[in-house]
Amino acid sequence: MKIISSPKEMKAFSASARAEGKKIALVPTMGALHHGHLSLIKLAREKADVVVVSIFVNPTQFGPNEDFDKYPRQLEADINNCRECGADAVFTPSVSDIYAPDASTYVVEEQISKELCGKSRPKHFRGVTTVVTILFNIVKPDIAVFGEKDAQQISIIERMVRDLFMDVEIVRAPIVRDENGLALSSRNKYMDKLERIGAARIHRALEATKKMVEEENCRNVDRVKAFVINNIANAKARVIYAEVVDAKTSLPVSELDPGKCRVSVAVWYGQTRLIDNILI
Amino acid sequence: MKIISSPKEMKAFSASARAEGKKIALVPTMGALHHGHLSLIKLAREKADVVVVSIFVNPTQFGPNEDFDKYPRQLEADINNCRECGADAVFTPSVSDIYAPDASTYVVEEQISKELCGKSRPKHFRGVTTVVTILFNIVKPDIAVFGEKDAQQISIIERMVRDLFMDVEIVRAPIVRDENGLALSSRNKYMDKLERIGAARIHRALEATKKMVEEENCRNVDRVKAFVINNIANAKARVIYAEVVDAKTSLPVSELDPGKCRVSVAVWYGQTRLIDNILI
Repeated sequence: MKIISSPKEMKAFSASARAEGKKIALVPTMGALHHGHLSLIKLAREKADVVVVSIFVNPTQFGPNEDFDKYPRQLEADINNCRECGADAVFTPSVSDIYAPDASTYVVEEQISKELCGKSRPKHFRGVTTVVTILFNIVKPDIAVFGEKDAQQISIIERMVRDLFMDVEIVRAPIVRDENGLALSSRNKYMDKLERIGAARIHRALEATKKMVEEENCRNVDRVKAFVINNIANAKARVIYAEVVDAKTSLPVSELDPGKCRVSVAVWYGQTRLIDNILI
Repeated sequence: MKIISSPKEMKAFSASARAEGKKIALVPTMGALHHGHLSLIKLAREKADVVVVSIFVNPTQFGPNEDFDKYPRQLEADINNCRECGADAVFTPSVSDIYAPDASTYVVEEQISKELCGKSRPKHFRGVTTVVTILFNIVKPDIAVFGEKDAQQISIIERMVRDLFMDVEIVRAPIVRDENGLALSSRNKYMDKLERIGAARIHRALEATKKMVEEENCRNVDRVKAFVINNIANAKARVIYAEVVDAKTSLPVSELDPGKCRVSVAVWYGQTRLIDNILI
């Protein structure tokens, strides 16, 4: 497995794979890899000839009061995990490899990005679409794999790829959960074991909501939102939002269309911001 | 010469040229081709194996009170001109080929775009960077040729290409002028012959400014600006801006560095908005 930090070298690696007619998959990550990430790498391995995992904690997607500095970094363990999952290359550029001191160009998605997490993290998705564009332009993958825990992020990236005619197929991979149901996230490291057990209530609430919708044949979006908020909220869990959205676009819907919607939530669990979602 | 309107077909045309190892040049235009455009096509012809001219009047780069509707359109004459200049393909998509009804993704440059024309045309360059990205992603050219009349536009595109790691070499082509010195522009069609003769004063003023700077060894930016404004302004010519900028980045400078600067102006000549510039 190659470990590459220079964008120029990464371009050369990809160009040579492409020249051999190989299909390239990119798994963009911010490192601190967990079993969710590893499932993405394995899926990429099944779908492509060459698997590139990028590890880059992207400063432009963190707000000024967010956790860029304390975001977990564990490059050596990440590299070992990538190797074990069969990656062909790990791309680990530095911040200055990706952003010139006077960088001034951004890719912005202006509809989906304004909803859900976009309301409290106004420049977050701009950072995501910009860095994903840069990674796509460097690696030039045929496919890129993203996890559905970040369902809104995938919807935005799919929209960007369509709008800007990018030649990448976006592959959605299912959420991976721990033994209690908590969706895996690098930010789970901010919680201790007891908190992680407590935070699994988010997933239980989403499951209960799905069951309620099915049993009562509920179409009323407000009722769904009230139900899920009521099931999550307790002394430690403060709900930031709960929305019923289109499963593909992540745009809020006014009426529930069974099988085509998703309930998406963001929750402060203690000091940790968590997101999760479920298809309904 | 191929005439292609579908993005999918354009991608296929480019892919096949690339597969044959050919170097592809793109000349992006809004049609209404004049000798300035033709010089770009000829330069592209010298530098590449395959020359693609795009003709697309891009709605997103026009402001709400600008001239999108009356912008000159003459597709048949344009196609003949492209053929005569040795283009291999003309790409003429419709607006709906390029923009989905719910398109919501833009490429924005946020530093250079705020200066000069960006002050009075706030979303113009966002439209330019977005459509140029789309054209680059469809045609995937090795080089793209732009005229230096739109010097700020070239600087913004060069910045975008650098920031987003696009694999395109931007080629600058010199301004082409009519017999009186007026910089060629499709918008010159808005003026009658007498107006065009009168508007040539803009170029004469820039030449006089260059001469003054050289003869008097002038470094003072304010003096240069006052000189050029004073030389252009008359009953018909209203100066929108006159700036001394870095010749490469188009960012305003506070002191004149001879040989590395440009004087850039925008002028309302009667009802027509004209821009021009000169290296000093």
